[in-house]
Amino acid sequence: MYFITSNEGKFREVSRIAKYFGIEVEWLRMDYLEPQCSELEEVARISAEIISKKIKENFFIEDSGLFIEALKGFPGVYSSYIFKTIGNEGILKLMDGITNRRAYFKAVLAYWDGKEIHIFEGKVEGEIATEIRGSGGFGFDPIFLYNKKTFAEMGDEKNEVSHRRRVLEKFFTWLQKSRDL
Amino acid sequence: MYFITSNEGKFREVSRIAKYFGIEVEWLRMDYLEPQCSELEEVARISAEIISKKIKENFFIEDSGLFIEALKGFPGVYSSYIFKTIGNEGILKLMDGITNRRAYFKAVLAYWDGKEIHIFEGKVEGEIATEIRGSGGFGFDPIFLYNKKTFAEMGDEKNEVSHRRRVLEKFFTWLQKSRDL
Repeated sequence: MYFITSNEGKFREVSRIAKYFGIEVEWLRMDYLEPQCSELEEVARISAEIISKKIKENFFIEDSGLFIEALKGFPGVYSSYIFKTIGNEGILKLMDGITNRRAYFKAVLAYWDGKEIHIFEGKVEGEIATEIRGSGGFGFDPIFLYNKKTFAEMGDEKNEVSHRRRVLEKFFTWLQKSRDL
Repeated sequence: MYFITSNEGKFREVSRIAKYFGIEVEWLRMDYLEPQCSELEEVARISAEIISKKIKENFFIEDSGLFIEALKGFPGVYSSYIFKTIGNEGILKLMDGITNRRAYFKAVLAYWDGKEIHIFEGKVEGEIATEIRGSGGFGFDPIFLYNKKTFAEMGDEKNEVSHRRRVLEKFFTWLQKSRDL
């Protein structure tokens, strides 16, 4: 089964988590066109539909984002672009003086089984830190607090609680069940 | 000829500018799927291709964004989403303490003539103000300084110098020429 992404950090995490489940994932390093939608589910579903016209084997893609309550969900579905432009420093600046620091990471996975698309989601709640901390993970990990540590400070522990872990757990469990049928 | 947009402020400006050129534009109020691309040109071209499979008459669409130099082009192609979430206040907060305030508005127009797509662009350079000023226009107009006034303070004057005026001027001039041929 292929995992399609151009993001190396994401592939590394996914294959590490897949190993817990004894599943081998092959990396198809490829950029694909994502639509501009306000919901991750829609982005993943439409992207998978487009890819399924080209790739005939089973594959899955994953799209994720950081959603900050006080910023109406910003950076949300455009997390990757916003990380590349204003980065963690930009988010901290926007959150300066704001007391409601609630935020969540959400991951949506779309799996193409050769016939149809199946959608799974995973979510983890936390808070926006007041400073950048830690060097693990990637993207917004150094400013996302989960139980007093940032995702970037948690090392492999992150992969036990993250949105990505949760969505993959749902997906792999479903996959094993449907293979046992 | 149809102008396709779901944004009323944009339609109002376009039809006002079209009148200077004696051109009547009909509003087709419709949402369409835009791709996530790093360039406005690409967004407009791909969107027009998708729409042209459904709408058989001649039409044009316009996509624009505010590009701030010190923020690596942010909010750029995602200006509309970013305006809806962090707004003008968010941009001012991000620009706090930054001395390079150079920015530009860019508009890209894609015209489908029934056979192929033609792309036009218009740009206006200015600066990010240090406060919100004026009540005209829409979106980031109250923080975009052009010759000491913000776009929101300029009233109809804005339509003589804006990125939208410039792209429409190129488009309508080209259109009149190609009709005279």
